[in-house]
Amino acid sequence: MKRGFGSDNHSGISPEVLKAITEANVEHALAYGDDEYCARVEQLFKQHFGNQAVVSFVFNGTGANTLAIDAMVRSHEAVICAETAHVNVDECGAPQRIVGCRMLTIATPDGKLTPELVKTRLHGFGFEHHSQPKAITITQSTELGTLYTINEIKALADLAHEYGMYLHVDGARLANAAVALNRTFKEMTADAGVDVLSFGGTKNGLMIGESVVFLNPELAKDYKYRRKQGLQLCSKMRFLAVQFEAYLKDGLWRKNAEHSNRMAQLLYNKVKDVPQVEVVYPVQVNGVFVKLPRKVWTELQKQYFFYDWDIDNDVVRWMCSFDTTEDDINNFVNSLKTLIANG
Amino acid sequence: MKRGFGSDNHSGISPEVLKAITEANVEHALAYGDDEYCARVEQLFKQHFGNQAVVSFVFNGTGANTLAIDAMVRSHEAVICAETAHVNVDECGAPQRIVGCRMLTIATPDGKLTPELVKTRLHGFGFEHHSQPKAITITQSTELGTLYTINEIKALADLAHEYGMYLHVDGARLANAAVALNRTFKEMTADAGVDVLSFGGTKNGLMIGESVVFLNPELAKDYKYRRKQGLQLCSKMRFLAVQFEAYLKDGLWRKNAEHSNRMAQLLYNKVKDVPQVEVVYPVQVNGVFVKLPRKVWTELQKQYFFYDWDIDNDVVRWMCSFDTTEDDINNFVNSLKTLIANG
Amino acid sequence: MKRGFGSDNHSGISPEVLKAITEANVEHALAYGDDEYCARVEQLFKQHFGNQAVVSFVFNGTGANTLAIDAMVRSHEAVICAETAHVNVDECGAPQRIVGCRMLTIATPDGKLTPELVKTRLHGFGFEHHSQPKAITITQSTELGTLYTINEIKALADLAHEYGMYLHVDGARLANAAVALNRTFKEMTADAGVDVLSFGGTKNGLMIGESVVFLNPELAKDYKYRRKQGLQLCSKMRFLAVQFEAYLKDGLWRKNAEHSNRMAQLLYNKVKDVPQVEVVYPVQVNGVFVKLPRKVWTELQKQYFFYDWDIDNDVVRWMCSFDTTEDDINNFVNSLKTLIANG
Amino acid sequence: MKRGFGSDNHSGISPEVLKAITEANVEHALAYGDDEYCARVEQLFKQHFGNQAVVSFVFNGTGANTLAIDAMVRSHEAVICAETAHVNVDECGAPQRIVGCRMLTIATPDGKLTPELVKTRLHGFGFEHHSQPKAITITQSTELGTLYTINEIKALADLAHEYGMYLHVDGARLANAAVALNRTFKEMTADAGVDVLSFGGTKNGLMIGESVVFLNPELAKDYKYRRKQGLQLCSKMRFLAVQFEAYLKDGLWRKNAEHSNRMAQLLYNKVKDVPQVEVVYPVQVNGVFVKLPRKVWTELQKQYFFYDWDIDNDVVRWMCSFDTTEDDINNFVNSLKTLIANG
Repeated sequence: MKRGFGSDNHSGISPEVLKAITEANVEHALAYGDDEYCARVEQLFKQHFGNQAVVSFVFNGTGANTLAIDAMVRSHEAVICAETAHVNVDECGAPQRIVGCRMLTIATPDGKLTPELVKTRLHGFGFEHHSQPKAITITQSTELGTLYTINEIKALADLAHEYGMYLHVDGARLANAAVALNRTFKEMTADAGVDVLSFGGTKNGLMIGESVVFLNPELAKDYKYRRKQGLQLCSKMRFLAVQFEAYLKDGLWRKNAEHSNRMAQLLYNKVKDVPQVEVVYPVQVNGVFVKLPRKVWTELQKQYFFYDWDIDNDVVRWMCSFDTTEDDINNFVNSLKTLIANG
Repeated sequence: MKRGFGSDNHSGISPEVLKAITEANVEHALAYGDDEYCARVEQLFKQHFGNQAVVSFVFNGTGANTLAIDAMVRSHEAVICAETAHVNVDECGAPQRIVGCRMLTIATPDGKLTPELVKTRLHGFGFEHHSQPKAITITQSTELGTLYTINEIKALADLAHEYGMYLHVDGARLANAAVALNRTFKEMTADAGVDVLSFGGTKNGLMIGESVVFLNPELAKDYKYRRKQGLQLCSKMRFLAVQFEAYLKDGLWRKNAEHSNRMAQLLYNKVKDVPQVEVVYPVQVNGVFVKLPRKVWTELQKQYFFYDWDIDNDVVRWMCSFDTTEDDINNFVNSLKTLIANG
Repeated sequence: MKRGFGSDNHSGISPEVLKAITEANVEHALAYGDDEYCARVEQLFKQHFGNQAVVSFVFNGTGANTLAIDAMVRSHEAVICAETAHVNVDECGAPQRIVGCRMLTIATPDGKLTPELVKTRLHGFGFEHHSQPKAITITQSTELGTLYTINEIKALADLAHEYGMYLHVDGARLANAAVALNRTFKEMTADAGVDVLSFGGTKNGLMIGESVVFLNPELAKDYKYRRKQGLQLCSKMRFLAVQFEAYLKDGLWRKNAEHSNRMAQLLYNKVKDVPQVEVVYPVQVNGVFVKLPRKVWTELQKQYFFYDWDIDNDVVRWMCSFDTTEDDINNFVNSLKTLIANG
Repeated sequence: MKRGFGSDNHSGISPEVLKAITEANVEHALAYGDDEYCARVEQLFKQHFGNQAVVSFVFNGTGANTLAIDAMVRSHEAVICAETAHVNVDECGAPQRIVGCRMLTIATPDGKLTPELVKTRLHGFGFEHHSQPKAITITQSTELGTLYTINEIKALADLAHEYGMYLHVDGARLANAAVALNRTFKEMTADAGVDVLSFGGTKNGLMIGESVVFLNPELAKDYKYRRKQGLQLCSKMRFLAVQFEAYLKDGLWRKNAEHSNRMAQLLYNKVKDVPQVEVVYPVQVNGVFVKLPRKVWTELQKQYFFYDWDIDNDVVRWMCSFDTTEDDINNFVNSLKTLIANG
């Protein structure tokens, strides 16, 4: 398939990650996470997220988000999220089916919740006819390529805790956020009051592997059973663990995220002044959202796969990944310009 | 960790499988199974299971079994299984939670259902107070290391269909069965009337990867949504697909299964006449179940990890895998004999 | 408790209904709906809803709505509804837990969906990441006391069917709507293309009793099992059935609904010109929604129980029921006026 | 329908209960249990079950049992029960669907669990592959018409608590048990260590009405939300409450249960020596289980409705109710004897 800007999961495996898998492929290891690799990588997570962090490896982002929600709420409770949250629109209703809870959605201008927006949903406590708000989930960086500042995360965490609620972060692209903000994972999560984190790897160079990180370890109480029953317990777990080891131990996460963020800036710079192209959200991490004439983007899709994002408004999404090259960008922008020139 | 006989998932990745992953790690591929690798491997499955087969890759056996059940029954229906079925005892109630159905369990002498046993559960059709029997699930080879003959599978399929029910096979170790029976996958499944199959790979040399194979393609109608909502949709799916390609295209499945079966025979031959050791089930595939004095097996567990199987009766399980060596067996048996000799 | 305007379920049992219960309290009857009473009342429903109608009695509105949704969609599918729909906000997430589906909510000015509004949700068909829209649910009369015309219902049914979807009506107050529109139940439901109806009784004079009416009988296929498993199968069913018989056979439904609607008009007429009182929705059935100074409504609540409806905007709800009297209204309005005068 | 011995829910409403409904049918009352009637009847329950008891009214036995289980376990946990338990076989899998848990069934000779039997299921604690045993449920009196002594209940409660588990009693026929044992409800439940009770009314003279009684009030923590979401919250709750008031305040429960138990004894005495009739369980409460020639019982079913209980063994069930008369019994026995005489 032609290289392009469809998604950061269209790329393959970072060589360092594949090397780690290969090196772990020796002898026997206990299954289901009871092996030495997992023990070692759990320690590594503690270095990145704080000593109280409880980590578990899962297969995919839907699994991470759903199990994180499952750890925070029961079915009669509700999760507050942005309307555009991946967990709301892109997981085919997994939280509803697996957890049975309500998702209380809020329209946002930029994919970001604020305390003011969240407060509009903080009603009906103690009233048995209403699902009881019990968690807030935000995405960092957001589905629209925007970022929460650490103070914004703190404000949401404080609000959540004031109401006896929890704060979850969908961090499928947390590395991109860390690089953009120049802050550590711990500063963005544990230190900011986040209770549970879905910490992604696949979109930034892993083969298969996401994780659930409990910054609030009390929430992990029944987790091991819930993960098993929730279809996310891997048998040869060492091969999930060592991917994260390669990712975290020598800064691969940073190298990859810096690259994809920089490529998105490059793409942005090359298209922002092209006539008929309107960049609709700030380019803060590795995605560029643009409004284009329909004829242009549909023609461009014949050459390159990418998603329409808001079909009613002709907004499309271009994602850069750890292996995007300058040539990829130049070729793509040239195709775009040609299409626009030919009107 | 010391090599041993804990489980066939304590081994690592077959070199051929890792090579396939490495070779697929080039350029971009569409995510979620829409790539060329998956298309190619789906064709390969049709060669092995018949042209009508619909295949999907999932992460683990709990996922495969639960999604297969989900495709056969709704929550008010019931699945008939052996009491010892993995899906009954070893998945922490995943079918109950994800599908919401009842499991109708039957005690068996050897882990195998028969039409006569199943008929004891075929009551209450049309009576709304009773969960309606809608599927039978069997395991081939069974959790006790025993085998169904093809005629036995056919008889269960016929019974199921006579009652408007479906037959599912949990084939986590189907390769070991195929080798032992010297029959093809198709003969054991599609040709025998099986409707859905969980076709395993991890226990026989894959890194991570199981599959659901619909021999009855009507059951796949809503499957793609159910898999996504069921937390089992992989983004970089090519890396699941190519593992199965390596497994199926040149007989790796056979080579590995033949080896682990042969190792189990070797182990069996070496222990069957050891005093105080009683092999409790026929050794038909890659597991050996033995009854031992408690003091012996608990001491042996200090040297080697393996599972007690039936603690009340002092039965333990020893599993061979594709990488078990004759040295592994000799060392293990020597340790056993020493313990027995020392009483 | 002081009589008031808290809800139409604060009233008791219509004498005719209690008489029917008393008269049915003779001898034995088969349980679970297999009795002669139920057979008779099912015929009576066919007279009111058309011969194809399949009726079942359930305990409460949450049960009726949830089982109706359960008959239309599976967990990976979605139900489109108004944000203000009872099934969305007032059932503590029952559809999410029992059915596992997504509710796709739409903001409306008056509690009513339109084809234009619904179309904003008709995206993503065939895309496994999105819950698949499969049903529309509307409330007649709505939670805001407004009404759909028959043509408006037809338009929504046509849209639903065009997309292979179903239309459900939450008819907890369908009698009030029928009276206000001067149309039969059949004209408002079966003839308009409605597939399933929650047909209420409790709010209009029954003791305990709601019903699910399948106008599209194909949807009733597995219903009897789903009702049992869904906790809504009554043993002494005759006592649900005869309440509906009393309700439907001689026009009690009409008498009661006409009365409560008329009382709401009376209340409306008496308050509409009171200073500081703003009636915020058209008074089409038996509810009056008014905006009041907070000090006034909170003081009035010390004398009379009623619900705040939109606390942020000082909107409260006053409901009339089949037993509301003119004296009730006069006394209430006098209290209101005194509070306003004392401002 | 001809009066008979089909079930104790084939009878109607005790006159005292209907009178209470009628008397409560005045003026308005708050809905959903916030009324004065409920407050009063909750106090009455405390007199019968102890001051710590938390009571809630629900619609039916499936609802009571399922919500009780829901209060004790989460989906990854398991409930231990007799194979013959109503909650296992006669609720169409409601616990599986609503709670998502496993039911661990045990074969019993007489429908009764014992500590020895339960211990066979107390394995796998802390092992995430196994559903974690968290509750025991027993039925008093059992589905086979047998009784637990108070000491037997205590022994099961002690065992449960020793393992951090809970004990639930399905008391659909608790009144019959209390009468037979000549013990109070409190002695049989709270004093014996029972944590949660499904306390029935419908089978002993109520119209519609069951209850969940938390003897261990900690288990009621989230209950009000779970009941609402679990479809069991009644709006005109006063009419459930006053039925129980009539039942409990002046000994109606005792009068009715004594009568139905006595009628069963009478029936037993009249059939026990009839040739070809074998009474298969001790007649301790209001049911008589007999083994009969198939030709006899199928012919008798043409005259009287009753359930075959164990069709493979020609065992049928005859239930007496609060309104069974001696004439009913004489006529029934005469028919039986005629059929037997005519061979």
